[in-house]
Amino acid sequence: MPHLVILYTPNLEAETDMTALCRALADTMLVQRDAAGKAVFPPGGTRVLAYPAAHAAISDGGVAGRAAGGNGDYAFVYLNLRMGAGRTPEVVVQCGDALLATAKAHFAALHEQRHLGLTLQVDEGAPSYDGKFSNLHPLFNPGKA
Amino acid sequence: MPHLVILYTPNLEAETDMTALCRALADTMLVQRDAAGKAVFPPGGTRVLAYPAAHAAISDGGVAGRAAGGNGDYAFVYLNLRMGAGRTPEVVVQCGDALLATAKAHFAALHEQRHLGLTLQVDEGAPSYDGKFSNLHPLFNPGKA
Amino acid sequence: MPHLVILYTPNLEAETDMTALCRALADTMLVQRDAAGKAVFPPGGTRVLAYPAAHAAISDGGVAGRAAGGNGDYAFVYLNLRMGAGRTPEVVVQCGDALLATAKAHFAALHEQRHLGLTLQVDEGAPSYDGKFSNLHPLFNPGKA
Repeated sequence: MPHLVILYTPNLEAETDMTALCRALADTMLVQRDAAGKAVFPPGGTRVLAYPAAHAAISDGGVAGRAAGGNGDYAFVYLNLRMGAGRTPEVVVQCGDALLATAKAHFAALHEQRHLGLTLQVDEGAPSYDGKFSNLHPLFNPGKA
Repeated sequence: MPHLVILYTPNLEAETDMTALCRALADTMLVQRDAAGKAVFPPGGTRVLAYPAAHAAISDGGVAGRAAGGNGDYAFVYLNLRMGAGRTPEVVVQCGDALLATAKAHFAALHEQRHLGLTLQVDEGAPSYDGKFSNLHPLFNPGKA
Repeated sequence: MPHLVILYTPNLEAETDMTALCRALADTMLVQRDAAGKAVFPPGGTRVLAYPAAHAAISDGGVAGRAAGGNGDYAFVYLNLRMGAGRTPEVVVQCGDALLATAKAHFAALHEQRHLGLTLQVDEGAPSYDGKFSNLHPLFNPGKA
């Protein structure tokens, strides 16, 4: 944790730079601070992964989009951030708003040009088991390594 | 929401039309009505995405399948519908049954010919943050756009 | 259930045998026994699926890794086991520990050579709907088939 997984329709693969979106979202996470000025997310544990679907079906498949004068080609992006529980509701909203703003900025031009839906959800996970094996965290906590 | 994500073993990619399954499942969702006749799912928010795994291991890897006279090549499909909370238990079961029936119909012939497992689960999500950026919903609610 | 889904950065695809990891994890699940000696997981229902991301961003993108003398190429693996609720906390920890040990053994050499993070989480799912269509389970329960 935290893991941000992005699932999207394959038609977006050629239309936008998803690697850049991943980087922008990770950077957004890294700068989040709580009311005490402490980093909300551990830098060594901030991960964003994006997956274009191999197959998809969205809404009515284009009927309403064509009736509205478009080409009926719908695109969709689902962003799901899973993080540990325990942060304040204010911090959760702040982080959700910040990530949504980053995603909106990334897709602003495309949103003007095509049928596009984007949903961002944050889940506070409570796994029954949570194990790690990492040499990333010590890069950011050299004293604890 | 609602998002239906399909994860499956890569051996199925050449054996069945997953795009057709996505479309059939989305269509099944779009026709669901509650006891008052109201659509269960918003048409602009109905999304189905399918992902073949790059790597997989199923059960004992084929030992029991070969002992039973088959070729030991197991296939598996996991369908997970995540939707918002608040629908009645009756509606949840109705939707689950309808989606399972659609999936069974799609795989009926294959189920006769090969080792195949399919699981469909519905989760009622309660995200801590839920943000949207979409021009799909307004296609179906022109008065609200 | 149980489903173990592995998400990972694409740089690992050429560096490790993910099919072998899937098999090792499935085998680890199949040998788990509870205090009464009963199999923890049904053999016909044990499924492991692995997905390399198409795009990813990890941590600071390599800054700290290069400052520490590495090449800044971070890799990451997220293993998520979702299983039904009802097992004892001791069994959950036992299974988590066993799977983490298998994953650590698989990545031990790579962990010495590169920046690598791995997280394993177990979730006890409580789906609102759970439907199946399978000829795999009967292979292991011929009397019930």
